[in-house]
Amino acid sequence: MSANRGVLLYDVLRQVRPLVLNSARVVEQDLAADGLTVGMRAVLEVLADNGPATVPAIGERLDLARQGIQRHVNDLSERGLVETRDNPAHRRSVLIGLTAAGAARFERIRRDELGRLDRMAGECTADEIATAVKVLRSLNRDVRSRAGGDR
Amino acid sequence: MSANRGVLLYDVLRQVRPLVLNSARVVEQDLAADGLTVGMRAVLEVLADNGPATVPAIGERLDLARQGIQRHVNDLSERGLVETRDNPAHRRSVLIGLTAAGAARFERIRRDELGRLDRMAGECTADEIATAVKVLRSLNRDVRSRAGGDR
Repeated sequence: MSANRGVLLYDVLRQVRPLVLNSARVVEQDLAADGLTVGMRAVLEVLADNGPATVPAIGERLDLARQGIQRHVNDLSERGLVETRDNPAHRRSVLIGLTAAGAARFERIRRDELGRLDRMAGECTADEIATAVKVLRSLNRDVRSRAGGDR
Repeated sequence: MSANRGVLLYDVLRQVRPLVLNSARVVEQDLAADGLTVGMRAVLEVLADNGPATVPAIGERLDLARQGIQRHVNDLSERGLVETRDNPAHRRSVLIGLTAAGAARFERIRRDELGRLDRMAGECTADEIATAVKVLRSLNRDVRSRAGGDR
């Protein structure tokens, strides 16, 4: 019974890798029409969900290196989707925030994505999907703690 | 209600990316002692689960390019964990198979991993985890079909 949990959790992990790869490909295809990349979209999302943030803070949320984030921020800034703002807390570390155009763009992107997602996994109920989210959150917490913690 | 499903599936997708990154880090740390990489481990797993296969077939299972797989195969071969075998179906395309040492090594790696996994997500029941696997499989199928299919 105990071994069963380990095997089931292993099944979860085996599913997530191809899911990440293929969903990135789908999102990439859909974003290409907008001239955006998956990385740029991820930064827009952090800012839309959490408000203005510094580059290191965005990197921490995305588990990505600061250099990559800075590049996405530069690309988004050239397109008028994000802007830098003074940081009241740290004079040397500016905040990155969405422009009105950036907020509107991300809202549309997300609406389109949710519409497409809504038609997937049709044989699963909302309750089942909610259970999957619970399991993934819990596993994420423990895996993340082990990745950063007790080596 | 319908929108709810889309939002929940989106929550699933948001959980899987950090899970892949962090679980790869954990596996990486654990494999380092063995002098193996995550990519080499993935190839061992395909061969352990499905028997001997050609390099392109391994790549298809892992959603990875043939060149990367060939490199992992070379590295594993140097360590005596895989070997090439004649392919009865295609003379020019050899099969890659586990050696006895490779089979034993992967068995130990997997046993260790399952033991560690078994102690994670402790607040989730086996039924909940099985539901998560069902949802992920279903979502994977639809996302994969969209990634490769209707562009």
